[in-house]
Amino acid sequence: MDKQPIDSTAYVDDLGRRARAAGRDIARSSTEARNRALTATAAAIRREVAALERANALDLEAAREAGHDQAFVDRLALTPRVIQTMAEGLEQIVMLPDPVGEISGLSYRPSGIQVGKMRVPLGVIGIIYESRPNVTIDAAGLCIKSGNATILRGGSEAIHSNQALAALIREGLAAAGLPADAVQVVDTTDRAVVGALIAAERWVDVIVPRGGKSLTERISREARVPVIRHLDGICHVYIDDHADLDKAIRIADNAKTQRYSPCNTMETLLVARSVADRILPPLCRIYADKGVELRGDAHTRAVLGPISIACNEATEEDWHTEYLAPILSIRVVAGLDEAIEHIARYGSQHTDAIVTEHHGHAMRFLREVDSSSVMINASTRFADGFEYGLGAEIGISTNKLHARGPVGLEGLTSLKFVVFGSGQIRT
Amino acid sequence: MDKQPIDSTAYVDDLGRRARAAGRDIARSSTEARNRALTATAAAIRREVAALERANALDLEAAREAGHDQAFVDRLALTPRVIQTMAEGLEQIVMLPDPVGEISGLSYRPSGIQVGKMRVPLGVIGIIYESRPNVTIDAAGLCIKSGNATILRGGSEAIHSNQALAALIREGLAAAGLPADAVQVVDTTDRAVVGALIAAERWVDVIVPRGGKSLTERISREARVPVIRHLDGICHVYIDDHADLDKAIRIADNAKTQRYSPCNTMETLLVARSVADRILPPLCRIYADKGVELRGDAHTRAVLGPISIACNEATEEDWHTEYLAPILSIRVVAGLDEAIEHIARYGSQHTDAIVTEHHGHAMRFLREVDSSSVMINASTRFADGFEYGLGAEIGISTNKLHARGPVGLEGLTSLKFVVFGSGQIRT
Repeated sequence: MDKQPIDSTAYVDDLGRRARAAGRDIARSSTEARNRALTATAAAIRREVAALERANALDLEAAREAGHDQAFVDRLALTPRVIQTMAEGLEQIVMLPDPVGEISGLSYRPSGIQVGKMRVPLGVIGIIYESRPNVTIDAAGLCIKSGNATILRGGSEAIHSNQALAALIREGLAAAGLPADAVQVVDTTDRAVVGALIAAERWVDVIVPRGGKSLTERISREARVPVIRHLDGICHVYIDDHADLDKAIRIADNAKTQRYSPCNTMETLLVARSVADRILPPLCRIYADKGVELRGDAHTRAVLGPISIACNEATEEDWHTEYLAPILSIRVVAGLDEAIEHIARYGSQHTDAIVTEHHGHAMRFLREVDSSSVMINASTRFADGFEYGLGAEIGISTNKLHARGPVGLEGLTSLKFVVFGSGQIRT
Repeated sequence: MDKQPIDSTAYVDDLGRRARAAGRDIARSSTEARNRALTATAAAIRREVAALERANALDLEAAREAGHDQAFVDRLALTPRVIQTMAEGLEQIVMLPDPVGEISGLSYRPSGIQVGKMRVPLGVIGIIYESRPNVTIDAAGLCIKSGNATILRGGSEAIHSNQALAALIREGLAAAGLPADAVQVVDTTDRAVVGALIAAERWVDVIVPRGGKSLTERISREARVPVIRHLDGICHVYIDDHADLDKAIRIADNAKTQRYSPCNTMETLLVARSVADRILPPLCRIYADKGVELRGDAHTRAVLGPISIACNEATEEDWHTEYLAPILSIRVVAGLDEAIEHIARYGSQHTDAIVTEHHGHAMRFLREVDSSSVMINASTRFADGFEYGLGAEIGISTNKLHARGPVGLEGLTSLKFVVFGSGQIRT
């Protein structure tokens, strides 16, 4: 917990070398050993509630002294409930199937060799996150289960909490006979370590930033190591001219108002012109009653004005904006083509939904909207690892390569070709 | 074919904007239209043999004038046979199944939504390659079939040939009603265009370098866009203490001597100590007869010395070297563990094989060797898109993320989540 400048490259080299060695060991460990490490860590967490609270108290005190607001302090707090949830999270990861070693697609080739693919760990995952110390446990749990070593760099405000959790993870790994270096938590708040970590191509196979957009942007810009991430969640719901109006209202309400801050919350509503008159008045009444500020195009305002639902004028800027707040932009479009066009131009390739009963429209939307999740007749709020059945998620990716959408255990693995022969040679 | 310095950023912006637009069109085009474009291009190539030879003659003449050696000129040559092979290659791609739009893993979740994944084009692929102009057709064919737009930047020595081929591809695309900008061939030899292209994150989704190591290294170092590539092919064959000696000799011979220059040729042979006496003399006699220079460790030399097979002393440098030539390094290891250790330390994660009849050893090698292709009882020379049944390949990747090993149509696509609902909302 050194506050002096350190030699960040040497520091990361040391971490990286250990992680690489531990990664090889955990990659070939048994499912049972990895599960045992998770169970032992969960048990240690339940046993050490008091010690975790003491360590967390140091962080909470420092955060208050530094003048952070209550929301910040709340995110940092390891309450008994948060501590129990962390332990339960690990136990849920134990229940997930082991992705490692799965062989798929084995088929014989004319040469007589049999070719398939085996799922294998990526190696070393670097995770850079902000204040919530529970990410330490979630991320370590997913990496252990998927046979990866991990280097965790939490927020400096949570350093005491994270170090206390790290000690319990090391204990769990040791109890299972796995190398403690499979999970290393950076123990300095020196920011140069982040820079060295995201440049350490030799030691780190992928970086996962978890935090605000500015953190993610900086890492994406400066990293030499591949980054799994999303920047924006400008999610759309398009209500088609063939929509079931009840479903449309239910979905558009839920997609915006169930929670305002998640990345999969709708930010822009698109409505087909022919149904705007019927959809917008009842739907916008719901929004208005829930205190959602509306920003609409001219057509939307022309519909809402006469019935006295307040609606500001949407600017070009609005279509580009992820509000993460009770604000919604609304645009009336001619139909499917214009909706797809709008999403291609302003969307962030995160999650977009169509509400329609028209099969052809649904299938065109599905195919043509190039987002990590594309939905028919469902709320964008479903874009989530748990809802998709991944069991847990390390983040959501809007990358096009490798993992796209919610990233679970599978996203922390790769496929290599395996060839079974019986002496074949190439002629 | 401007030789003056141009504004490379503006040039690439223009190409990129067109590619992005064309990419959206080709992504939603029918399988039939894409196949028609390939067939029409093949027909145009067969029709224009004379014109292609004329364009190629300009490049050949310039290459000879520039003092390039015969091997270089041969690679550049569009002979009638090479021209026929290009047309046939396109017709073979027509026969491959369309990867785009395939939906897999659809399952119902407790919420009632149905979640699966759809295979979709990546968008815009940038391909940077050296002298062989036939790459223009191979790469364009794979990108068209997989629904991607592509920007091709061939070697400056092949510019006339590449532009002539580009015109035929545009003709083929137009005949199928697809945008001609789906395949754009850079028409300037200005090198700054490469720099701008690999930095154009907004317009290019992935870069595939095809050429020598120095080209690939430069691109890997400078690119802002993800790169699918391999640098070295330091491939190993490990002959286990439980190997069938006949298979071992056949495979180790083939892996080295079938061809010396491919990336999947063996560069280092590892032999278990207990079988070294029996394996090395007959195997190395074969190598010696074929003119392969041997470089061995002390044990190897002690075995070969008394029977007068020449073997130089292998240095540390040898284990790190991809010879791409009739040179082989040989090391005697204690057994499986030391072989795996050697490959982890010196290998390039390309292709490695074990020869063994021991099931446990085979499966440990398969699991623990972290290479893009891992083989049991087969020659490393099989690591190839055609041999694996991919139909065609755009390259071989030793990346860990996304595509690993031979990369065919699937590597030019991505998976997005698709959600089918019937009005579900999140509670």
